Amino acid sequence: ALFTAAANMAKSKFDYVRNFETDDTCLRNCYIVVRLDGRNFHKFAEQHSFTKPNDDRALELMTRSARSVMEELEDIVIAYGQSDEFSFVFKRTSTWFKRRASKLMTHVASQFSSSYVFYWKEFFGEQPLLYPPGFDGRVVLYPSNRNLRDYLSWRQADCHINNMYNTVFWTLVQSGGLSTTQAEDRLKGTLAADKNEILFSEFNINYNTEAPGHRKGTTLIWEKRDEISTKRTTLPGGEEADVAVTRSRRRVHAHRCDIIGEAFWAEHPDILEGDHC
Amino acid sequence: ALFTAAANMAKSKFDYVRNFETDDTCLRNCYIVVRLDGRNFHKFAEQHSFTKPNDDRALELMTRSARSVMEELEDIVIAYGQSDEFSFVFKRTSTWFKRRASKLMTHVASQFSSSYVFYWKEFFGEQPLLYPPGFDGRVVLYPSNRNLRDYLSWRQADCHINNMYNTVFWTLVQSGGLSTTQAEDRLKGTLAADKNEILFSEFNINYNTEAPGHRKGTTLIWEKRDEISTKRTTLPGGEEADVAVTRSRRRVHAHRCDIIGEAFWAEHPDILEGDHC
Amino acid sequence: ALFTAAANMAKSKFDYVRNFETDDTCLRNCYIVVRLDGRNFHKFAEQHSFTKPNDDRALELMTRSARSVMEELEDIVIAYGQSDEFSFVFKRTSTWFKRRASKLMTHVASQFSSSYVFYWKEFFGEQPLLYPPGFDGRVVLYPSNRNLRDYLSWRQADCHINNMYNTVFWTLVQSGGLSTTQAEDRLKGTLAADKNEILFSEFNINYNTEAPGHRKGTTLIWEKRDEISTKRTTLPGGEEADVAVTRSRRRVHAHRCDIIGEAFWAEHPDILEGDHC
Amino acid sequence: ALFTAAANMAKSKFDYVRNFETDDTCLRNCYIVVRLDGRNFHKFAEQHSFTKPNDDRALELMTRSARSVMEELEDIVIAYGQSDEFSFVFKRTSTWFKRRASKLMTHVASQFSSSYVFYWKEFFGEQPLLYPPGFDGRVVLYPSNRNLRDYLSWRQADCHINNMYNTVFWTLVQSGGLSTTQAEDRLKGTLAADKNEILFSEFNINYNTEAPGHRKGTTLIWEKRDEISTKRTTLPGGEEADVAVTRSRRRVHAHRCDIIGEAFWAEHPDILEGDHC
Repeated sequence: ALFTAAANMAKSKFDYVRNFETDDTCLRNCYIVVRLDGRNFHKFAEQHSFTKPNDDRALELMTRSARSVMEELEDIVIAYGQSDEFSFVFKRTSTWFKRRASKLMTHVASQFSSSYVFYWKEFFGEQPLLYPPGFDGRVVLYPSNRNLRDYLSWRQADCHINNMYNTVFWTLVQSGGLSTTQAEDRLKGTLAADKNEILFSEFNINYNTEAPGHRKGTTLIWEKRDEISTKRTTLPGGEEADVAVTRSRRRVHAHRCDIIGEAFWAEHPDILEGDHC
Repeated sequence: ALFTAAANMAKSKFDYVRNFETDDTCLRNCYIVVRLDGRNFHKFAEQHSFTKPNDDRALELMTRSARSVMEELEDIVIAYGQSDEFSFVFKRTSTWFKRRASKLMTHVASQFSSSYVFYWKEFFGEQPLLYPPGFDGRVVLYPSNRNLRDYLSWRQADCHINNMYNTVFWTLVQSGGLSTTQAEDRLKGTLAADKNEILFSEFNINYNTEAPGHRKGTTLIWEKRDEISTKRTTLPGGEEADVAVTRSRRRVHAHRCDIIGEAFWAEHPDILEGDHC
Repeated sequence: ALFTAAANMAKSKFDYVRNFETDDTCLRNCYIVVRLDGRNFHKFAEQHSFTKPNDDRALELMTRSARSVMEELEDIVIAYGQSDEFSFVFKRTSTWFKRRASKLMTHVASQFSSSYVFYWKEFFGEQPLLYPPGFDGRVVLYPSNRNLRDYLSWRQADCHINNMYNTVFWTLVQSGGLSTTQAEDRLKGTLAADKNEILFSEFNINYNTEAPGHRKGTTLIWEKRDEISTKRTTLPGGEEADVAVTRSRRRVHAHRCDIIGEAFWAEHPDILEGDHC
Repeated sequence: ALFTAAANMAKSKFDYVRNFETDDTCLRNCYIVVRLDGRNFHKFAEQHSFTKPNDDRALELMTRSARSVMEELEDIVIAYGQSDEFSFVFKRTSTWFKRRASKLMTHVASQFSSSYVFYWKEFFGEQPLLYPPGFDGRVVLYPSNRNLRDYLSWRQADCHINNMYNTVFWTLVQSGGLSTTQAEDRLKGTLAADKNEILFSEFNINYNTEAPGHRKGTTLIWEKRDEISTKRTTLPGGEEADVAVTRSRRRVHAHRCDIIGEAFWAEHPDILEGDHC
């Protein structure tokens, strides 16, 4: 009892340490972007025998985990992923967790990471996950729609450049019989046009018809779509029947298309809020 | 090819968005504390039928995940956990990830969360994990050893107060036959002494002999201990034999003791660096 | 000599303290507003016998000091002042002092304060300045033109409300013979309409024709205007003559008009940069 | 009246812009250092014909302004100045202006700057101040006494190195008849010992007996000293007489001594608070 009274007093005596926490509220009226990057994923990919240059199971697991983040957290309007990274965009007027940067980024990092392990089996089946993977995150603010779109364009341009390089590189190795060192030398100093040419003339591959998900990455947005389900109902006459019911549902949908140009944004005018507020 | 050249240009055109990232370096010569808290763990505990007031499987899984964080990340000198929270202390001279707050807290949140799912089965066996759990994090800096110890004392005093309340509350419900509302009423306004008295006189429970891990939480530190292993060796005479080999190894060890008083710190003088630097 | 060698060594030994400085770069593409407020200006006004409710000498000295800030510092596109406060707006694309908040706000505070003392005599003549006054400052970022205009509107609405109150209050005291306490009581709970009515029916004052500088505060902007000067020139015939020379010069000009509505901004379309960047 | 009602509404409509202000509270239990630097003081010194290498009037004006800052603001325990810079140290437990960095640094910059102009005449007499000078500031936090002392040592070592260089340089020019370019060449690559040697063997100057204020800079601290004043009193017998009254008064005192070593700190044990809190 004495100790407990002491503990109560102690607690109030120690309470002052709370004041060392600092406020990290994100500036209002800015988009809040949280980007995650896999930690040591080069090694992780090796150890889990990921297919080169793209492992569809791994990419789909990334997408599945990102979807879990969008569904569990509030106010994420768009997410974009490629390779071992994923960016999540909170709407500019979000007040989730009072816009505290630390809360937003740790929630994203945590939900993504636990989902990655949780859904592993769905994509890798019996192949075991050898150890718990790590992702680090950061927060960046963008004050205008232009800035945000340029951010997403930057990531998609990065995806394009890396994927083209990797596609040619691994084609040279896997189909061309080059060693990795030879492939590297071969590509040194080549321009994009040269890489396209190698693929086409030597391996008869048209880069532009490669899987969109590899070339463009994955963009997740919320969309309202009609969904038809059947429902067992009792008809006026008393018989039972299956009736088709159409319901509009808001769900996360994946796109593998260009998001640099205008078309995507014209088709989805609700993703961004106006600059005029 | 044209598109690719455009993409390269585009990338450098979009590059400017990098400059919107701001620096969040933690002040030097301060302890960096990252505290994680379970998100909606009240509901999570219900849905996974956690034992009240303490579920040892859940507590051990928390500890296992925290150990994974200490082992995989750099420079964590002590960690303290209770209930659904865990605090990690980076040494004051750490330069890991250039002391960037966002990197440190997301790494901790990510590694802890993926480990929680990864090691679930070790503690819950066949009981399935229903969905990926979330943890949020924050960073707090402490400039002096006194401040850091007061922070840890604050968390342990919190553990004590909550655990005493929960112990009496659930004893009244589980052994005393009270409803949760009745138990709540019974405890309204009681002091620590009263709670001790209820436990002792009505249920013959001495609170001070309850499990230390419940009363004190879990403290993880690095310790060098001698470990003895047997090694098959060929003896001079040519026969094979098992020989005991003693090796000093630095490992994470768990303590369930008081960390408010001086004793623990006197026994482990290497945890804290001096204030005089 | 020994000591000096030691000093050099010492300096490099102490150099590490530089790393404790933290980066306080302002988010790009946002307007940077620095607002100054007079410290204890109520007392300062008393001690220097400022006229109530507005002292034109003091207001003009504020404006003179603000003009000095705009002329000496870079990238300030508009400034707005009223009473003992002045706000300075750096353009959203400014890179002056790498957008470091501390540099911007201390430069403004310093230049304003030294100017206030330096120009005192120009406005107060032989009345001595009794002690050096202080102004504190703060930095606020605004991501959109709307936000910035709302900020300026907020300050001008504040000017309006305070000035109307002060005008009626001091009229009641100075012309109505009320004590300050009586005037305060009289105004308790009155709406704007009531105040207008008191002025008009009791003192025959039309608030809307009061000095614009008192009702609207002072807005400073850069404007290019033609300036005509005379220059002594030798004519072809050999005689000397004064010739009028017109030169377009960019100078800081003061306005005392409404800046809440659209008109001011339509007339000066160059103050704000577009949101679409 | 209508407009006024609108203004009230407007004000509350615009009020939201307050929330864009961010919190910049300084971490508790750290020393808060504000350092000011003269803006373009090289040019300022030229234009005001400052004596080379040190102008005592200018140095004393800096000190006078710093004293004004210490007296007008709260919680500054020590200040150190040299050349055109001055550092102010707020005690680690200060809660002045809630430890908001922007408030502290703008107050210092403002008070110093207005004082510099205000007290100019005291030191420069009839020589006019040509324009209002500017000073910029920054805030740096130091968590330990060691860090703070190393900061001050860093500034004093800087003073020493610069002053020695300037002393030799201007001696070569003023007494040695060298041009500034020749003096620069002569000093290129010289060590401290060489500079001492030049002064001593060529100009018979012992650097160590140069004015302490030039070699060591100026340190300001609060000290309680007995002050004797005379007071006219009526004696018991009825006559009037001057009586000496001793009163202990806390004032800012200037020191021009070494603050790198232990002696100064041992003599003034009250400047720093303990690390053990």
